[in-house]
Amino acid sequence: MSPNFPKPHLKIPKILLLFFCISQIVAPGFAFELDESLTFIWPLPAEFSSGNETLSVDPSITLTVSGNGGNSVVVSEAFDRYKRVIFKRASGFSIFGKFRGRGSVYDISELTVIVHSESEELQLGVDESYSLTVAKRDAQSIVWEATIEANTVYGALRGLETFSQLCVFDYGTKSVQIYKAPWYIQDKPRFAYRGLLLDTSRHYLPTEVIKQIIESMSYAKLNVLHWHIIDEQSFPLEVPTYPNLWKGAYSKWERYTVEDAQEVVSFAKMRGINVMAEVDVPGHAESWGAGYPDLWPSSSCREPLDVSKNFTFDVISGILADIRKIFPFELFHLGGDEVNTDCWSSTPHVKKWLGDHSMTTKDAYQYFVLRAQEIAISQNWTPVNWEETFNNFAANLNPRTVVHNWLGPGVCPKVVANGFRCIFSNQGVWYLDHLDVHWDQVYTAEPLEGINDVSKQELVLGGQVCMWGETADTSAVQETIWPRAAAAAERLWSRREAISTGNITLTALPRLHYFRCLLNRRGVQAAPVTNKYARRPPRGPGSCYGQ
Amino acid sequence: MSPNFPKPHLKIPKILLLFFCISQIVAPGFAFELDESLTFIWPLPAEFSSGNETLSVDPSITLTVSGNGGNSVVVSEAFDRYKRVIFKRASGFSIFGKFRGRGSVYDISELTVIVHSESEELQLGVDESYSLTVAKRDAQSIVWEATIEANTVYGALRGLETFSQLCVFDYGTKSVQIYKAPWYIQDKPRFAYRGLLLDTSRHYLPTEVIKQIIESMSYAKLNVLHWHIIDEQSFPLEVPTYPNLWKGAYSKWERYTVEDAQEVVSFAKMRGINVMAEVDVPGHAESWGAGYPDLWPSSSCREPLDVSKNFTFDVISGILADIRKIFPFELFHLGGDEVNTDCWSSTPHVKKWLGDHSMTTKDAYQYFVLRAQEIAISQNWTPVNWEETFNNFAANLNPRTVVHNWLGPGVCPKVVANGFRCIFSNQGVWYLDHLDVHWDQVYTAEPLEGINDVSKQELVLGGQVCMWGETADTSAVQETIWPRAAAAAERLWSRREAISTGNITLTALPRLHYFRCLLNRRGVQAAPVTNKYARRPPRGPGSCYGQ
Repeated sequence: MSPNFPKPHLKIPKILLLFFCISQIVAPGFAFELDESLTFIWPLPAEFSSGNETLSVDPSITLTVSGNGGNSVVVSEAFDRYKRVIFKRASGFSIFGKFRGRGSVYDISELTVIVHSESEELQLGVDESYSLTVAKRDAQSIVWEATIEANTVYGALRGLETFSQLCVFDYGTKSVQIYKAPWYIQDKPRFAYRGLLLDTSRHYLPTEVIKQIIESMSYAKLNVLHWHIIDEQSFPLEVPTYPNLWKGAYSKWERYTVEDAQEVVSFAKMRGINVMAEVDVPGHAESWGAGYPDLWPSSSCREPLDVSKNFTFDVISGILADIRKIFPFELFHLGGDEVNTDCWSSTPHVKKWLGDHSMTTKDAYQYFVLRAQEIAISQNWTPVNWEETFNNFAANLNPRTVVHNWLGPGVCPKVVANGFRCIFSNQGVWYLDHLDVHWDQVYTAEPLEGINDVSKQELVLGGQVCMWGETADTSAVQETIWPRAAAAAERLWSRREAISTGNITLTALPRLHYFRCLLNRRGVQAAPVTNKYARRPPRGPGSCYGQ
Repeated sequence: MSPNFPKPHLKIPKILLLFFCISQIVAPGFAFELDESLTFIWPLPAEFSSGNETLSVDPSITLTVSGNGGNSVVVSEAFDRYKRVIFKRASGFSIFGKFRGRGSVYDISELTVIVHSESEELQLGVDESYSLTVAKRDAQSIVWEATIEANTVYGALRGLETFSQLCVFDYGTKSVQIYKAPWYIQDKPRFAYRGLLLDTSRHYLPTEVIKQIIESMSYAKLNVLHWHIIDEQSFPLEVPTYPNLWKGAYSKWERYTVEDAQEVVSFAKMRGINVMAEVDVPGHAESWGAGYPDLWPSSSCREPLDVSKNFTFDVISGILADIRKIFPFELFHLGGDEVNTDCWSSTPHVKKWLGDHSMTTKDAYQYFVLRAQEIAISQNWTPVNWEETFNNFAANLNPRTVVHNWLGPGVCPKVVANGFRCIFSNQGVWYLDHLDVHWDQVYTAEPLEGINDVSKQELVLGGQVCMWGETADTSAVQETIWPRAAAAAERLWSRREAISTGNITLTALPRLHYFRCLLNRRGVQAAPVTNKYARRPPRGPGSCYGQ
């Protein structure tokens, strides 16, 4: 019924499909064992060992918690979420009567989670380590079926994600099984900061969609949502102190109330994800003037924000004070990129002000950024700035500044050599709107490249993929993020030596295919992995595992 | 931070945005009233009147049910779903203390649903009519706040959807409001069959994704999911009687158990959506032979199914008997399209069989389809066949056959002239994989075109948009379906005269933009409306309402 599509030419060779089949987790007795050496957990845990048993998992699996943090709602809600993820299929009911019924004996009926700390504070560097043991209960066993042990609730969340990835629905027995048990996993992230930027100014993303994205981030163990809320195109956020600012929204409906923003932060926290807000000054701020035209140098020259007025800094201070109540994360992004100062030199009153203060426009750019930093710091925030600030006036930047690389490679080495902390987002590899960047380029980009001194390496907080929104709205955002964000997520989580050797087409690609299909199964619109351009739909029929 | 994108050239003129703003539902006092004549309910109800009051809706709104069908879980679960849809934003909690708290007085605190019939049977032609009244409670009022009255629970579902579309979050008061009250709506669909085809053979769609699509169908009041489960590329469905059939799946994980299929049917029923299964014979069936190679004429010539063997019809009978238990809908699709009989005439044993039975290959095609029809009818199914069966041997088709148009326009007039029932899916306008078909072409396609006799018009059951899966997997399927499926949905639901006059760029397009943004708000990846090619991401920054 679809004659426009030349079907006979598009069949995927069965042998190719077979290749992808056998490269997955395989049940005992499955004829092909070629890729059993691979471990289908994404990102790869720091240390693990597995065996050759298959264990069945009880759809009525219960949670037992202990330790000072055992009663955390973060853990119990996550358990309920993951139970739904793991047992999507197993309703226990069938007209064909083939399901295992109540009273069946399962190998894993209990998940024990031990959390040592009662603190639920989620900050940069929070302990995300965990151990996960899955072993058949027997007299010799020192562990009890499935056990996650972690110092914090956030470590427990990472362990739950790993546990969920070990659980595979088996179509033969119609039960959830864990292959290659017993599993002994000791895991922790390589970097404390593993981010994804969302841009809600170029296109408004409904909170429902932001939550979908946060949920999917947790599957890849990403832990920072960098919310680029505002830009020159629109100002969607409510700022109670300056209530006209969100008149810069695209429409009456493309807005976030402070409650919306709180809900996003709270939803993210339940998944161990910090939200770093960005208020990008002095460039990228034209939309501010829709509510307060005085912020523009003039009505015909609208960017950067008017450096000459105290009102400009009053507004920045007001915004930051208002949103400080919403965003508890210590890092706050002040932007500072791509500042074209022509409006300052061409607008008479600003030009006069520059002269009065003996400032060049470059001086004024520095003055603006440093004054904004002071405001942020006075509100107990650690400022993050795009790398232009470092490139232009490193010597005067507040030493607490975290420099956010984007323009190209080789920046973090310079940043840490100057004693600043750095976030790696080299646009050539980690800007997701660059659709011609392939998964392997994302995967092999190394934040520590060119930094050999261990004490300097510690200044690299981590990295971030950036989903700029010019051509990505609700319809396209998830397929642009995934699966490439997962490639970066493994780079940021897993041990460098474990993922940087060998032929990644054999060691990583089949695993990334598998993770992409896992995202699909969980309802996430992750795109084919190996298309020439990212987010392109498949070119023809075929298996998820081979496209 | 995204220099590769020439931002200054891509700004959307503010005046254009303004146009789209003012064409939406507007609050009293909003300066522009140009488009208040438009009604932002999609699809447009059959009859309605509105006023000029604004009513507030209580986030704790309660449901009161009455009538014989009042205690249906279909209604109560739908109420809970819609409450979540309507009050996504209103958590009632704010650090800024601006929310209306408990104890506030709202105009609408109660929704009354009256359902007259206790039957929950969902079949073709089920009564989906409803009336919806929303008016301020006062001494004169004969109705109580918000009232839905329907003959069946499925009519009540349609009324709930309409109610949800009237409820708009107002960013000024931070409450959900209903504008232009009082509303008096009398609504019913024009066609009994309003379908969407999903193809899970060219790409496997996880049940989670199918459920997302079903949920979104309910927003547009579509009521049939035509599940094209199997095709030549893969056979994902479990058939207990022939357990090797799903060896034709792409992989061990791209399968549907019978429980999965039941879950899809049950999920759909809760949303008033029938699931029509398709088992397409004798063409499009190569994948069957992965489990049972005897179904192929030969291992080198694999399609159509071998007409010469009783085994072929035993398998068909077994499949139909097994899935009859899963799919209660009276319509069942037997395919019958695009049958290339070369394998029959070129395979010696089939050629001999043809000779023995004095059949041409065309005779054998008819023989196959009619024998399959008999099997379906014997299992109490009404057969649906693609139009080639009608085009080739109309005189011999079972008179109960529903003919499914796809090849082009003008088919349904011939079908109904011959006394058969017809479903309209003209590929030139209603095949969603045809990406060059614009929303207005979808919108103006009329299933009754060329049929003037009312008794013949009644033989057109309705129509269906088809989402063939060759280039649409989980990553792309929703943005290929929406918003164009909504254009067809209004064509199929709303009164012909109401949507076929005037300039649809003024009357329908702003409403379709609005509905697309509503889908986005509800987390559905509906694509921009007016791009040259469907499902393309936006070309630049801008408002959802203008792209």
